[in-house]
Amino acid sequence: MTTPAPRPLRIVLAPDSLKGSLPAAEAALAMSAGVTAAAARLGHPAPDVVLAPLADGGEGTLDALLTAWSVEPRTTACHDAAGRARTARYGISAPGDASGLPVRGVLEAAEANGLPLVADLPLDALTATSYGVGELAARLLDDGAEEILLCIGGSATTDGGTGLLSALGARFLDADGEPLPPGGGALMALASIDIGALHPRARGVRWRIAVDVDNPLCGPRGAAAVFGPQKGATPDDVAVLDAGLAHLARVTEDATGVSMLDVSGAGAAGGLPAVLVPFLGAEIVPGSTLVADAVGLSGALAGADLVLTGEGSLDTQSLGGKVVQAVVGNAPEGCAVVAIAGRVQLTAAEVQGAGLAAAFSLATGPTGLDELIREAGPLMEEAAAQVYGVFSAGRLR
Amino acid sequence: MTTPAPRPLRIVLAPDSLKGSLPAAEAALAMSAGVTAAAARLGHPAPDVVLAPLADGGEGTLDALLTAWSVEPRTTACHDAAGRARTARYGISAPGDASGLPVRGVLEAAEANGLPLVADLPLDALTATSYGVGELAARLLDDGAEEILLCIGGSATTDGGTGLLSALGARFLDADGEPLPPGGGALMALASIDIGALHPRARGVRWRIAVDVDNPLCGPRGAAAVFGPQKGATPDDVAVLDAGLAHLARVTEDATGVSMLDVSGAGAAGGLPAVLVPFLGAEIVPGSTLVADAVGLSGALAGADLVLTGEGSLDTQSLGGKVVQAVVGNAPEGCAVVAIAGRVQLTAAEVQGAGLAAAFSLATGPTGLDELIREAGPLMEEAAAQVYGVFSAGRLR
Repeated sequence: MTTPAPRPLRIVLAPDSLKGSLPAAEAALAMSAGVTAAAARLGHPAPDVVLAPLADGGEGTLDALLTAWSVEPRTTACHDAAGRARTARYGISAPGDASGLPVRGVLEAAEANGLPLVADLPLDALTATSYGVGELAARLLDDGAEEILLCIGGSATTDGGTGLLSALGARFLDADGEPLPPGGGALMALASIDIGALHPRARGVRWRIAVDVDNPLCGPRGAAAVFGPQKGATPDDVAVLDAGLAHLARVTEDATGVSMLDVSGAGAAGGLPAVLVPFLGAEIVPGSTLVADAVGLSGALAGADLVLTGEGSLDTQSLGGKVVQAVVGNAPEGCAVVAIAGRVQLTAAEVQGAGLAAAFSLATGPTGLDELIREAGPLMEEAAAQVYGVFSAGRLR
Repeated sequence: MTTPAPRPLRIVLAPDSLKGSLPAAEAALAMSAGVTAAAARLGHPAPDVVLAPLADGGEGTLDALLTAWSVEPRTTACHDAAGRARTARYGISAPGDASGLPVRGVLEAAEANGLPLVADLPLDALTATSYGVGELAARLLDDGAEEILLCIGGSATTDGGTGLLSALGARFLDADGEPLPPGGGALMALASIDIGALHPRARGVRWRIAVDVDNPLCGPRGAAAVFGPQKGATPDDVAVLDAGLAHLARVTEDATGVSMLDVSGAGAAGGLPAVLVPFLGAEIVPGSTLVADAVGLSGALAGADLVLTGEGSLDTQSLGGKVVQAVVGNAPEGCAVVAIAGRVQLTAAEVQGAGLAAAFSLATGPTGLDELIREAGPLMEEAAAQVYGVFSAGRLR
């Protein structure tokens, strides 16, 4: 029993990916199909639908941004953490696109220094280098990016970002003025940093690094101690790398006045922020915030009646810096936020206490995880249609 | 992101039972707790909540009506299908209650002539009698019921309602003017029906029989052929009973002018409608309609913004004369109907095509039937809270 509708609803579809099941872009498309079909059969005007697939800064972020920006991926030559040539993908938003935002470039560091790319080699934590990430970043600068978004998870390196900055033209020198060999194992010999030949645009753009860990650069919770072992570091290697990163921080502070020793998140990805922040003014931001900003979520949500978000599992983590929280934080007054997830592990009280109107599972009855994963697309479309039905019954009158 | 609310929502909670899991009254209470808690935490005025637990005319209908009428069950002495004394429960609504409806009395025939009550005996389909059901009905008349609701499922009898009508004072006589012995097996000897001593109120009240089968009285789809065997009838017994019911129909038509031979549903419960319709003017109605009318659902729904219904499994049967369909049929223009079920087996297109706004499962992720059954109460409360969140986000502004 629904009355005729006076105006179309504006609905923003802003899901995270459902990991292992449904990429964010496909989730947003399924939601769109669901709300559009529901509106048609309820005799409502077609909703004004905005696709805004999101990501958390981890794997899949590049793809989500390519979709959100409506651009194709670009590729460039670079090197992996072991120095072998490879081709990596990256993305650049179209100049002057509808978002009104600067030209944004995004890279996933793991496309260059990723651990899986060197899985065929004996891991060498001391020499692994982020140089290839810098090659990617340089290409973004050459292509005209005014804002560079670095998604840095999954790295094989612990070099404090020295490789990255080297690729942009910096020189990390020993006491004899000779360049250090690649990798964090050589950092104790660092005497000075020469940025005279830095890429001409490197300091003229905005750098943002997606970081979702709070590990410091050094010490027992630092980059070497916590993440080194999975990159092949022996206990002795960890000691060498940890001391090297601490030394890098001291030399950097001498050069820039900025200390990275107590910065939360500076230990991410082998300490990449340790040089990016002091030398390039990079900002450390939660991955979901970076993505929300990069897709212009706040603008997309202006005037929205309803935003559907979602992820694989809605749990307490979802409310702490993840995509769902970014959506809630960007939703304007009067815009309802509803989450659709494979698994809803929060109570209605927790959901509504966090600023959402509601959260629903994809499940339509007794079911297994396998089925939810296999049928995630159609189930997402159905769930979005059901949510539209309830929301519009209240709203459209 | 919800704006302050201008007025409380009126929400009617009208679920069927979730069979084997959650009685309708408990489902309604769980829904009430959910929407009330959600309103409180969203800063909305407390909703105006109406409990209207429903039933389909089968097992649990008496309990649902007792809850809806806010009355205690009454008990009376009667006899089972084998003639043994027992005590049965029934219900009478309070005179002049808020519904504005006549005084309603309800009985579940199975409280007297139920098959489980004679499970300790060798089943005798030829002599089993509905006399006890008539005793219950007489008690309802004595207690002042102005409308008698008969829920007749689960019977052990195939006597065409002759036992029932006998208990109300009718006399079923053979050619010598002698009363027939009890049971359908004696009906071939029926020569006349004397209703001179019928209970004085029997023809002055409204009788409604909940029937959800379309079986005719006689023939291959009739009461004896289809339901006789489960009541202990041998193939020979079936032939005797079928012939007896056909003969009863002829004698009844001679006396009343009403033929029951082609009436859909006359074969329910061993043919109980076969005498109730011609002699008492009883109406055959779908169980869910009977219950919806008895609880004053239409009145309860007047002015409602939202009605939550539900059942164990929402499927195509739900849309064919079951509780959900009764709710949709009684919902006024502009009132949204949302179903919450253990299992939703309809698509959003089917749900919305049937006039509901949406349907949601109790499931919050991968889960088994056992868990849904065990946790149905808390899950129903949660689901109702989520639905309130979405609906009110649209409505309250």
